[in-house]
Amino acid sequence: MKKLINKPDDVVTEALAGLAAAHADLVRVQFNPNVIVRADAPVQGKVGLVSGGGSGHEPMHGGFVGPGMLDAACPGEVFTSPTPDQMLDATKAVNGGAGVLHIVKNYTGDVMNFEMAADLAGGESIEVEAVVIDDDVAVQDSLYTAGRRGVGTTVLAEKICGAAAEEGRPLAEVAELCRKVNANGRSMGMALTSCIVPAAGKPVEDLPFEQGDQVLAFVNGMGGTPLLELYVVYNDLNRFLGERGITITRNLVGPYITSLEMAGCSITLLRLDDELTRLWDAPVKTAGLRWAA
Amino acid sequence: MKKLINKPDDVVTEALAGLAAAHADLVRVQFNPNVIVRADAPVQGKVGLVSGGGSGHEPMHGGFVGPGMLDAACPGEVFTSPTPDQMLDATKAVNGGAGVLHIVKNYTGDVMNFEMAADLAGGESIEVEAVVIDDDVAVQDSLYTAGRRGVGTTVLAEKICGAAAEEGRPLAEVAELCRKVNANGRSMGMALTSCIVPAAGKPVEDLPFEQGDQVLAFVNGMGGTPLLELYVVYNDLNRFLGERGITITRNLVGPYITSLEMAGCSITLLRLDDELTRLWDAPVKTAGLRWAA
Repeated sequence: MKKLINKPDDVVTEALAGLAAAHADLVRVQFNPNVIVRADAPVQGKVGLVSGGGSGHEPMHGGFVGPGMLDAACPGEVFTSPTPDQMLDATKAVNGGAGVLHIVKNYTGDVMNFEMAADLAGGESIEVEAVVIDDDVAVQDSLYTAGRRGVGTTVLAEKICGAAAEEGRPLAEVAELCRKVNANGRSMGMALTSCIVPAAGKPVEDLPFEQGDQVLAFVNGMGGTPLLELYVVYNDLNRFLGERGITITRNLVGPYITSLEMAGCSITLLRLDDELTRLWDAPVKTAGLRWAA
Repeated sequence: MKKLINKPDDVVTEALAGLAAAHADLVRVQFNPNVIVRADAPVQGKVGLVSGGGSGHEPMHGGFVGPGMLDAACPGEVFTSPTPDQMLDATKAVNGGAGVLHIVKNYTGDVMNFEMAADLAGGESIEVEAVVIDDDVAVQDSLYTAGRRGVGTTVLAEKICGAAAEEGRPLAEVAELCRKVNANGRSMGMALTSCIVPAAGKPVEDLPFEQGDQVLAFVNGMGGTPLLELYVVYNDLNRFLGERGITITRNLVGPYITSLEMAGCSITLLRLDDELTRLWDAPVKTAGLRWAA
């Protein structure tokens, strides 16, 4: 596999420079430690939203920084957790006096480092709450995780909580909303396998979905799987859920959480209510997700 | 390479069904022959825009059907030209009395079939103009083409002409604008090669760009190349053009014209003036491109 890079050691830095150049209206990038910050941060009086994780999963998270979604993202090296100093700098950069929410995917390194950063931020009198996303029903307790992994629901939580923060809601409420999204979202990924899992009706435990539910269905490509195939998966998913009386009222289909050029897809279902639907529909303006009211 | 499909013969049909289900607010799909039509087509008094080409290049073209861009797209089988009857049905479906523009990529099969469809539409008293996009400076005269291939500029022409049609401009003007976009756009693709071509200053003839120009820079991923790497390419391109006094005032970075999971990228530059910039910025609402004013 040939890659479009100059030097492997420089790939993250150069990609960040490219992101900053391409989207200067949305973000600025601080280097060493690396942080992608919303161009107009800190927004006074608004809760700041910070997430982060290893690079190689673009557009997550840097592509989700902008009005209506994240205030900052901490990009680690490729497939490596970001460091506490990145997270601390991000937290300081987005603190507009209303506190900062850390949206953390459940990987041991991420969780540990975000905890350390929250402690350090507390020492500088910045109020921080953290919510850990653990929505993956396929991977529970692995080499890198205790409990379920955090995957697709993260993007949905970032969007929905971003809209709530934009409305001026206080930190405790935005954090509570984030927990609600996590509680109602479940994901399942399948790398390099045919995607018949839903249609085959393989039993998956701890799904909170039932007949009559309205859901957001998120079919995510991992990078190397063509959009053509993601729509084949969406078609199967739509039929599968329809037969079970579950209605897809919102959807997202495309490569949003990738793993470089990995082939595969993940499916995330989020049970919607009126509040979550309204916040999902609210305007968002980021490199990776963008729509108007 | 494992694929997320059910049966190879059904992949296009099932993907179209998925597209229709996911984006029912934007498009409807007619099967046999397959056409993706803007949900509210025909729009009375508006020039209809039709494009098409082989499947496997998604989101092009079906992902670009919607307000502010295409009125219909004709998806062929994978990497195969659509047929004249698809194009004729598309033309009839979008004819709102102001005529129809065919935006045709310069591949022998596409050009021939669109010509046949235009003749047939003429026989049904629908006024049709066709503009052939031939912007690829890398491939001139191949097994599949006479002259330059049509690539990245196609997406830009579809967006810009879509905005002009939305403004109510007549067919002759929209067609002329399409020719202007083609005349000012040039593309170069590099599959599976390191992307140093621009930085190395390899001479490329017949580029219409010079010091002082403002351009739209489109860094397109072919499917299997991560977004991370596309931003590395954008960073190099930005520096390369900056050193030559060419300013990027608009950009598009991502997988918009893919070839399934092919690794590689293409770079398209379009020289902008005030009119093209304004039409680029106009609202667009499609599955693949979406922004507000």
